[in-house]
Amino acid sequence: MEDKAKVILLGSPFSMFMMRVKIALAEKGIKYEYMEEDLTNKSPLLQEMNPIHQKIPVLIHHGRPICESLIIVEYIDMVWQNNAPLLPSDPYHRAQARFWADFVDQKVYHSSKRVWTSKGEEREVAKKDFLESLKQLEEFLGEKPYFGGDIFGFVDVALIPFYCWFYTYETFGIFKVEEECPKLISWAKRCMQKKSVSETLADEKELYESVLEYKKKFILD
Amino acid sequence: MEDKAKVILLGSPFSMFMMRVKIALAEKGIKYEYMEEDLTNKSPLLQEMNPIHQKIPVLIHHGRPICESLIIVEYIDMVWQNNAPLLPSDPYHRAQARFWADFVDQKVYHSSKRVWTSKGEEREVAKKDFLESLKQLEEFLGEKPYFGGDIFGFVDVALIPFYCWFYTYETFGIFKVEEECPKLISWAKRCMQKKSVSETLADEKELYESVLEYKKKFILD
Repeated sequence: MEDKAKVILLGSPFSMFMMRVKIALAEKGIKYEYMEEDLTNKSPLLQEMNPIHQKIPVLIHHGRPICESLIIVEYIDMVWQNNAPLLPSDPYHRAQARFWADFVDQKVYHSSKRVWTSKGEEREVAKKDFLESLKQLEEFLGEKPYFGGDIFGFVDVALIPFYCWFYTYETFGIFKVEEECPKLISWAKRCMQKKSVSETLADEKELYESVLEYKKKFILD
Repeated sequence: MEDKAKVILLGSPFSMFMMRVKIALAEKGIKYEYMEEDLTNKSPLLQEMNPIHQKIPVLIHHGRPICESLIIVEYIDMVWQNNAPLLPSDPYHRAQARFWADFVDQKVYHSSKRVWTSKGEEREVAKKDFLESLKQLEEFLGEKPYFGGDIFGFVDVALIPFYCWFYTYETFGIFKVEEECPKLISWAKRCMQKKSVSETLADEKELYESVLEYKKKFILD
């Protein structure tokens, strides 16, 4: 008989959104089956499980799909609430965590993508926007070890997967995040000491090579 | 002595995002002070309370700001959880509600805005995208009275404020939502029977006039 409570993750190796889900699952100690998607040839399962966006990651639990990375992380946190809580229980701090995770999606993601997909003046603007967004995050981090305080939590999960992309942004944009945001890099190194993070994040050089390949195929410079 | 538990809402009359918060507050029966913002000349209070985005709506509770409409609605639902629950308690249905509310932000909002801010071919594409997103919502609604089932909830709160903008979209785009999505219009009329909704939504003609004024000032056709 099929195990209906089985957890399946549909993902793609260099997606920061997929990495969020892997980190949350690892933090909670949940066993799951990982199924890799070829995004140039999406599987019937992905199309069935996320008909609206047809995007990874998708978490399948009890045969039902949950889509959108932050929504999945919240779902995981709620279902397996006894282990390693990710969101604070206090409503105000919870809202604050959601605000900054949403900030990562709205600001960090879009500017960072433009750093490697654009060129010339547009790339310079993207670089400025990207560093500006990291500085705002660094200011919110302040002297705390993690974004939520003493414990690795929701905003950390939302942001840390971008760390393995920094080498790519830095190489295309010719800049060093560490020179602009040293405290953020200390925070990232602190997160990397956690197995859930270090075992999830992609190798930065491999990721860069794959981005070069992708650009050669799909983006005409 | 100042009432620290006082609830203040910073808003702007025709913002669908502000309307979401007003509806949630009305559903919960919460008294609050409404402060109108002039978005062409933002108040020092708005700049202090939402330094990152400087956008309305902002809810101020216990002197602390909560920003971003869906995050505010979740906050309200959590703090005043005994009255009129908006999000389902089951994790899967909760994730599903969040998915569709996010869909409204990602798809409905952006396409609807392009209907009245663009022209020509771009407007035709926007119209198509907008109706497509409404049809997807209508399909999810199915035969249920509300998006979450029998009770007015989170997705209803997220979408219903757009209803008073329909006249504007229809007038600019020369189409009728009702012809394409009759069940969605029945749902909207059902929501309008609730005082929390009917007393919050703007008059559609006044809204249209204000959009015309805005376009005259800021968008050169």
